[in-house]
Amino acid sequence: MPDPSCRCMCKMCRAPGARHCRSHPSCLAPAPAGPAVAAPRPRDVHEIASTLRTLKERAGSHSPGISEIERALPGAVRVDACFLSNPYATDVAMSRLRELPPGRLERMVAQYPAQASVAGALLAPAVGVLDEQLVVANGACEVISALLAGTGRVLLSVPTFSAYYEFARGPVVEHPLDPASDLRLDLDRLEWLAHRHRPDTVVVINPNNPDGGLVAHDDLVSFVVRLQQHVRQVIVDESFGAFTTLDEPRSLAPLVSELPHLVVVNSLSKSHGIAGLRLGYAVASPLRARQLRRATLWNLNGFAAWFCELLADRDYTRAYESARRRYVRETRQLLAALGELHGVRVFPSAANFALLELERPAGDVAMELLARHGVYVRDCADKRGLHGDRYLRVAARSQPENRAIVAALTDVLSRPASAQREQRDARAVTA
Amino acid sequence: MPDPSCRCMCKMCRAPGARHCRSHPSCLAPAPAGPAVAAPRPRDVHEIASTLRTLKERAGSHSPGISEIERALPGAVRVDACFLSNPYATDVAMSRLRELPPGRLERMVAQYPAQASVAGALLAPAVGVLDEQLVVANGACEVISALLAGTGRVLLSVPTFSAYYEFARGPVVEHPLDPASDLRLDLDRLEWLAHRHRPDTVVVINPNNPDGGLVAHDDLVSFVVRLQQHVRQVIVDESFGAFTTLDEPRSLAPLVSELPHLVVVNSLSKSHGIAGLRLGYAVASPLRARQLRRATLWNLNGFAAWFCELLADRDYTRAYESARRRYVRETRQLLAALGELHGVRVFPSAANFALLELERPAGDVAMELLARHGVYVRDCADKRGLHGDRYLRVAARSQPENRAIVAALTDVLSRPASAQREQRDARAVTA
Repeated sequence: MPDPSCRCMCKMCRAPGARHCRSHPSCLAPAPAGPAVAAPRPRDVHEIASTLRTLKERAGSHSPGISEIERALPGAVRVDACFLSNPYATDVAMSRLRELPPGRLERMVAQYPAQASVAGALLAPAVGVLDEQLVVANGACEVISALLAGTGRVLLSVPTFSAYYEFARGPVVEHPLDPASDLRLDLDRLEWLAHRHRPDTVVVINPNNPDGGLVAHDDLVSFVVRLQQHVRQVIVDESFGAFTTLDEPRSLAPLVSELPHLVVVNSLSKSHGIAGLRLGYAVASPLRARQLRRATLWNLNGFAAWFCELLADRDYTRAYESARRRYVRETRQLLAALGELHGVRVFPSAANFALLELERPAGDVAMELLARHGVYVRDCADKRGLHGDRYLRVAARSQPENRAIVAALTDVLSRPASAQREQRDARAVTA
Repeated sequence: MPDPSCRCMCKMCRAPGARHCRSHPSCLAPAPAGPAVAAPRPRDVHEIASTLRTLKERAGSHSPGISEIERALPGAVRVDACFLSNPYATDVAMSRLRELPPGRLERMVAQYPAQASVAGALLAPAVGVLDEQLVVANGACEVISALLAGTGRVLLSVPTFSAYYEFARGPVVEHPLDPASDLRLDLDRLEWLAHRHRPDTVVVINPNNPDGGLVAHDDLVSFVVRLQQHVRQVIVDESFGAFTTLDEPRSLAPLVSELPHLVVVNSLSKSHGIAGLRLGYAVASPLRARQLRRATLWNLNGFAAWFCELLADRDYTRAYESARRRYVRETRQLLAALGELHGVRVFPSAANFALLELERPAGDVAMELLARHGVYVRDCADKRGLHGDRYLRVAARSQPENRAIVAALTDVLSRPASAQREQRDARAVTA
């Protein structure tokens, strides 16, 4: 049988028992080796379902990481479309890491890395701010947790990245985004809520996760300015900012010198494809930055500290910029292709992923995508602020992987819903 | 001129303008290339002094890291005797890291590592405790900071590891250890102070840093038991426990199930030679462990998560255990050799370092060790609880490096004090 994800019409691909050409662009059959392309045999849906359920229970409000799925279901994932990260940027980083002399690598493992303040001095020029405004973090999550420690009420829109309400120590006021309005964030409404509830902290993720909705730079600046006398801090999380445009992305970070209640958070995991190195930062007024640094000392590992140095290397930044632009272009193509699927509503996204609303339960579709095609996507059933069970989040990966994602969705969504009912029944039996 | 650190009497080494054999064990002349062995030309003491002063100011209560010194004074450090870590354990870890298939390395860089709870499940059997008792940390410092967040009064002995008083949020009650009693910790006295000051937290580092003083396991257990109804938590830091004995080191960790006020902290940086990976942990009652985990999510990087898996690998643990025993044996030899130096008092140490009391200012000696021999040691002038300026801390490294350390100290301490006075004067002029 030809691979179901292949759309190629060449002789090799059409032959019964096809071995596939793997050369024509429309040939989406996975190559025979390597983790990203290993072709999974269609798996038993029951096995996948029960394993994913167990992993999900353990992962709380996050999706189970790919490493855990790989351990539980070896070879099951061919395309990790849950993972919000630029694979071309990873290639650029890996080529630099592989070139390191053995002695340097050993020092990165063995020695205490520079204290965060030293790494900050390396990173600040790359971010375009002063050292004293920068807080380097062991991943953005570390600084998000620190920003919300000892706060009072937190106002944020939902759905959003769950760390913001999980790390909040005080009460959380949720501003529900409305699917009927494309989950668009209305800053006037958020301002009105800020005046009404008098929160200590207001959070805006721009673009937002899980939908990718973007508010315009100037509107956001004006919003932050208007809140200056009314809230202690406004956190603007720009973790997906690198994916919004082919031009140089605009950041609010340079404004912290004028707006001391503003804190800009960023993660290099997504933009630079290095989630495993744990590197993020906050830009804040020098006073606030000093407070945030107080609880950390050697929070960066040797590899993250090396990466801070790499960001000052012009050859690297040139290669990264080209990887960024390529990924942005291909992401736009994926979003367009997703928009053409039948029975799917795609929310407007400026990020490297799309939120889809389906006509049937997303959990079943996610399970079938994994079982039949090895495509792992994010079922958003547990996302606070997204009601119902019809939402899937799909991340952009490399171009061949994006094609495989679209082909897999096309296949699964074209199957009669009865097949999915059967699977639900089967799951109910095994549950 | 033969290299002053060489004690070899072979023809090559005795010849004027000697190039050194570098093969006989007593030949301590550094090899011509590579960072750990590059022979520094005797450096200008003024340059070294002023650079170290600047770096020290930036590093606060810690010694400047070797990476910062390397950046400021390239090639100046031949032996990093400030660094408290087993180099043989690093070799074992590095050989495993270098064997990783390229795809695995890429996943460690690119992907989100397992959440800390998953890594904890891997690490718990290696530590010999239950998953629910373990808190995996991005280096011990992360969990020390978390343990002291929101605490009241903290009682600790000084001198000690500065993170404990720096991260303390409440007032710190210091119990001064007395040099006249070898800085020996008197647990009865500490218990008396606990009853008198009613602290929230009592800290015992065993063996202690910077002197290496050890309290006996059974005495410490009995001390912790006696405080059970009187303090909220007793932190026992066992970061140097692996160096105390050739036998299997004894830990208080298994006692947390009976003693819910006990928290045992450990760092793998020192014992396993992986300071750059940032991996430490705390063992605590399940309730306390859950509290401590609440503020972290993806705090481990991909390399630290890989290392948690490695600890479950029998071949690795066998090689590590052999590296540990070798290092403990050679450390004992170094401590014995330091004890034979003239004009030096060595405090009793069960750890991988020794605190020396000199007859002259330690800062001058440290500067000369670096300038003349490339040996970097810790001047303890800024250590809270160590009065005067005569204390140096010297770490054990590999055997050839230990020989170089002893030879360098022998040389510097045998020079007339006038040379050092001159340098002090020179420093006063440049200051």
